[in-house]
Amino acid sequence: MMSELKINLSDNRKDKPASDKLGFGKYFTDHMFIMDYTDENGWHDARIVPYGPIALDPSAMVLHYGQEVFEGMKAYRTPQEEIVMFRPDMNLQRLNNSCERMSMPQVDTQFVLEAIAKLVEIDQEWIPDGEENALYIRPFMIATEPALGVRASKEYKFMVILSPVGAYYPEGIHPVSIYVEQQFVRAVRGGTGEVKTSGNYASGIKAQEVAKTKGFSQVLWLDGKEHKYIEEVGSMNVFFKVNGEIITPALTGSILPGVTRDSVITLLQDWGYPVIERVISVEELFEASAQGLLEEAFGTGTAAVISPIGSLSLGDLNIEISGGKTGELSQRLYDTITALQRGQLEDSHNWAFKVK
Amino acid sequence: MMSELKINLSDNRKDKPASDKLGFGKYFTDHMFIMDYTDENGWHDARIVPYGPIALDPSAMVLHYGQEVFEGMKAYRTPQEEIVMFRPDMNLQRLNNSCERMSMPQVDTQFVLEAIAKLVEIDQEWIPDGEENALYIRPFMIATEPALGVRASKEYKFMVILSPVGAYYPEGIHPVSIYVEQQFVRAVRGGTGEVKTSGNYASGIKAQEVAKTKGFSQVLWLDGKEHKYIEEVGSMNVFFKVNGEIITPALTGSILPGVTRDSVITLLQDWGYPVIERVISVEELFEASAQGLLEEAFGTGTAAVISPIGSLSLGDLNIEISGGKTGELSQRLYDTITALQRGQLEDSHNWAFKVK
Ligand SMILES: Cc1ncc(COP(=O)(O)O)c(C=O)c1O
Ligand SMILES: Cc1ncc(COP(=O)(O)O)c(C=O)c1O
Repeated sequence: MMSELKINLSDNRKDKPASDKLGFGKYFTDHMFIMDYTDENGWHDARIVPYGPIALDPSAMVLHYGQEVFEGMKAYRTPQEEIVMFRPDMNLQRLNNSCERMSMPQVDTQFVLEAIAKLVEIDQEWIPDGEENALYIRPFMIATEPALGVRASKEYKFMVILSPVGAYYPEGIHPVSIYVEQQFVRAVRGGTGEVKTSGNYASGIKAQEVAKTKGFSQVLWLDGKEHKYIEEVGSMNVFFKVNGEIITPALTGSILPGVTRDSVITLLQDWGYPVIERVISVEELFEASAQGLLEEAFGTGTAAVISPIGSLSLGDLNIEISGGKTGELSQRLYDTITALQRGQLEDSHNWAFKVK
Repeated sequence: MMSELKINLSDNRKDKPASDKLGFGKYFTDHMFIMDYTDENGWHDARIVPYGPIALDPSAMVLHYGQEVFEGMKAYRTPQEEIVMFRPDMNLQRLNNSCERMSMPQVDTQFVLEAIAKLVEIDQEWIPDGEENALYIRPFMIATEPALGVRASKEYKFMVILSPVGAYYPEGIHPVSIYVEQQFVRAVRGGTGEVKTSGNYASGIKAQEVAKTKGFSQVLWLDGKEHKYIEEVGSMNVFFKVNGEIITPALTGSILPGVTRDSVITLLQDWGYPVIERVISVEELFEASAQGLLEEAFGTGTAAVISPIGSLSLGDLNIEISGGKTGELSQRLYDTITALQRGQLEDSHNWAFKVK
């Protein structure tokens, strides 16, 4: 049914931004992918068209009840002038998991991957040069039925847009100062924290703003139940090296299963490090620090890849990690993953997907 | 600054639906209100224009990070041919509270109330005849800045749309069967449950679908922390009459402070009933039922006004309430509030706001 992908190329190409002024998510390429869904006809009318505004009825359900899911991944240009994406199959599987949780229709991941590859190929000139730069790929699905009343929509749009991006943190790989959030909660088991839906992010903005005002880069989220156990850092998964052992919060239902998280675990195991997924209390972490055993801490995510944590603040308590510098393991993981993403290392896990 | 309201009337009026076939939120009137916000210029360009699609950039932040708030209220036509709204000041205050929590710009409630009154006056022919019918008013605000990256948007649209509606439950005031939700969670303290933002509703759709499949009308939400204490029923606040006393969950931070809830508490106090706001465990409720002390249960909200609960199911346990019939107090509250809303009773609390 979904075999046909119509392509309508833009005859009005935009100027491309300078590759050293990209920032994150500010510029969009010349084309986008769209397909529509109705309960009667399923997914249909798949098309690549010029990037531009979409018309939504003001009663479109996404604008009221937030039925939305999204993904984030990147395409890179290799030294061999190939274009590769990093583990897109995991992102598309997670997209479908998100759809399931949000009562939204799943997509044919094979077809969508081909459509994304085609879109990236068409807009390949937008893949920016420069070490830290990439083409960010944002698939998303929104409920478009024009109706009020809380229930699953009967109509959806699935779209993919592309944005040439620089480093997520303008400072590059660089330790950040983190505030342990004790009041606001990102997610709780039984909610939607383990999928990628807009409401999870909206609820975190306030805490982020408060942290910024206090001079921190991001917040460390604790569990919604006891406000004790570590969940994520900003929009990243989080890892700690304690006394030679690597620990990361187990996926207990309120944590997003990150693609970078999975890659980091795999690499660390390759390298012979013990990696333990379990619950980790913030108290335990501060104690480990007091005993001099907290060696490194870092966030993982598609946007920043590895984001070293230089300090953690809990109320008036402040601990420095790795002497406030980028830890050895953080650096090695960053170098390895970015090299893998750019086809500069042997791809023993088959993580690279060649667009062309 | 916001003194000017431009009006551009439609010259293409739509046919109105039959007043016995309205349903909820299916039809929209001929006009809508919009105003725009930018960080530099604040709210500007307030206008009433023909109802129709809005153009959004596919990267508009609301479509990714769910920064959205909304309200719901109703306008009624009185026997004296006046048009009245019920306590709109409370809705607009709640709107601003929601904005505050979601890091969105607040509105001038006085100006917005006047704009809504004007919009309702322009579309007054859409206020449907018929006892249970009303004109539903949906103010909402969305983040429109075209940018990816989780943070507060710098641009917003605030809109108001109108929909002639029938009874929210097609069966009218009529006891519903409710399923106590033990797996999924609507909200947790520290999250966004006490404000009206889209993500709260998206997260509830799945549970609602499961309950429907099992033959129930709606779910009773328990607290996100211990899964023990009663919070809301569907998208309504909830009240119980136990041994002559009225109890309702206290506003502990994860419950929406309903306008109907507040009105019910006030009326019950007027009538000499003791009303207690406190935490209520589901266990306590089932025990009260076993002892024959659970006399009534009902949900409260703008859409359904009063929705009597005929039965509650917790796993395999099922209790019938008020013999599965509409309780005396539920009926009295429903009759009183709907009469007040329609200007058929003396308005001793000054709840009616006259549109014209
Ligand atoms: C809440 C949250 N946690 C973790 C991650 C990291 O996931 P990934 O490594 O797949 O980018 C992301 C970003 O995608 C996220 O939004
Ligand atoms: C989650 C939730 N709880 C309670 C209510 C009831 O509030 P109100 O009486 O103001 O309509 C609503 C509906 O508005 C709601 O969405």
